[in-house]
Amino acid sequence: MTNWDQVHTDVIEWIKEAGNKITESFTHTLQIQTKSDRNDLVTNIDKQIEQFFIKKIREKYPEHLILGEEGYGENVHNTEGTIWIIDPIDGTVNFVHQQRNFSISIGIYENGIGKLGYIYDVVHKELYHVIAGSGAYFNGNRLPKLQEPQLSDAIVGINATWLISNKHVPVENLHKLVRDVRSTRSLGSAALEMAYIATGRFDAYIAMRLSPWDFAAGKMLVEELGGSITTVKGEPLNILEGSTVFVSKPGLHQKILRDYLLK
Amino acid sequence: MTNWDQVHTDVIEWIKEAGNKITESFTHTLQIQTKSDRNDLVTNIDKQIEQFFIKKIREKYPEHLILGEEGYGENVHNTEGTIWIIDPIDGTVNFVHQQRNFSISIGIYENGIGKLGYIYDVVHKELYHVIAGSGAYFNGNRLPKLQEPQLSDAIVGINATWLISNKHVPVENLHKLVRDVRSTRSLGSAALEMAYIATGRFDAYIAMRLSPWDFAAGKMLVEELGGSITTVKGEPLNILEGSTVFVSKPGLHQKILRDYLLK
Repeated sequence: MTNWDQVHTDVIEWIKEAGNKITESFTHTLQIQTKSDRNDLVTNIDKQIEQFFIKKIREKYPEHLILGEEGYGENVHNTEGTIWIIDPIDGTVNFVHQQRNFSISIGIYENGIGKLGYIYDVVHKELYHVIAGSGAYFNGNRLPKLQEPQLSDAIVGINATWLISNKHVPVENLHKLVRDVRSTRSLGSAALEMAYIATGRFDAYIAMRLSPWDFAAGKMLVEELGGSITTVKGEPLNILEGSTVFVSKPGLHQKILRDYLLK
Repeated sequence: MTNWDQVHTDVIEWIKEAGNKITESFTHTLQIQTKSDRNDLVTNIDKQIEQFFIKKIREKYPEHLILGEEGYGENVHNTEGTIWIIDPIDGTVNFVHQQRNFSISIGIYENGIGKLGYIYDVVHKELYHVIAGSGAYFNGNRLPKLQEPQLSDAIVGINATWLISNKHVPVENLHKLVRDVRSTRSLGSAALEMAYIATGRFDAYIAMRLSPWDFAAGKMLVEELGGSITTVKGEPLNILEGSTVFVSKPGLHQKILRDYLLK
């Protein structure tokens, strides 16, 4: 039996320690490599932080599995057992260019069911966490349930790229959505953009290509507060597979799906 | 003769005081009105802060003119004399929805020539200021001159709205630009997006509809560091008139104008 209280205590400690390592790195020169996608920068810090978590988890919870962006974890083929889904730095482009607006994202699932989720906005020292079924928190303060906003008042996180072309939703529908809401923003960290929905800073977020580590924690966080997260077609997300992602406050999710994404 | 050192000392003091008033307001309920454009929220805090600056300026510098977003200043018809161009809260939508990513922007011009500029990121307590001809500073530390970046490495601030339709640049050209750069972001505060260029967080910023108070300080800041700011057609900005704005690091400005905006 996993002692979830102990896991929670450990994660909090490790995340704070990792956050400190990251901010210390700002004074050093970063070695930047490019992966196949040049938007997807990898830095040595990214790798070091993932390895830091893996070492901690393997020491303390050797029977747990790890799925991480940098690929130092296991090849996870099904949702059996306890799986840690980790993005050591979500928003690496921001990390490199802005030294802000990136986060550490950790989601812990047991047999496919979300148990604990963490998104840590390192520079702002803002920790969002969720204990599934028991509440979601912002720097230790319990977050209220999300309310349904008016579409015309909504702030939607969406990157300009998806309005030019994408394989999933007709761009005309997205254009109409952008015209009908109050405004759009693009922050460049999927995990943070989901955390912004949890705190009401955004009302919806749409992305056409995310990986499990981008949404593993955010999914739990938003669902705990009554929000919805699916693919842009309204299908459930598979926590082991990359997909499109559409997150929104309650009510608004159904409305945007019906009137824009599935139109 | 204006004692510019004294003006600088005064502005710094007033901006910090205004910043404190704004952060204190977060604990109160905001009264929100909508102007003609519903994206352009006005809050009572916005008005209070503009009136705070106007009172201070009129007491200390009664001969100076004031051009402010909320319209409590003078009707300024030409650039003669000393003109303070003020946005008490640039990024009001962010102020209301996010309680971050907004700024106080103040540009002071003498007979049309920029003298002093200030952009204060209130929540992050980050002050960008420029003493035209003598340097630009970030929290008191002198900023280095901007270097020419590769287009393919560039982060461009642009709101998704302009990619759908605008009267100034063919959307196909903007689409090509978005595909050719590393990534786009949209923060929702023009003044801050210009400040982000000054610190290298962004490489370029494009907006199709800004007012003098949105760019009065940012223009000075970016130009002091060797960057360029014009309309999207490459024309000089008129500091008393609204227009399109294209800001970029040196070299990249000419390249984007030639290959995308004027194509």
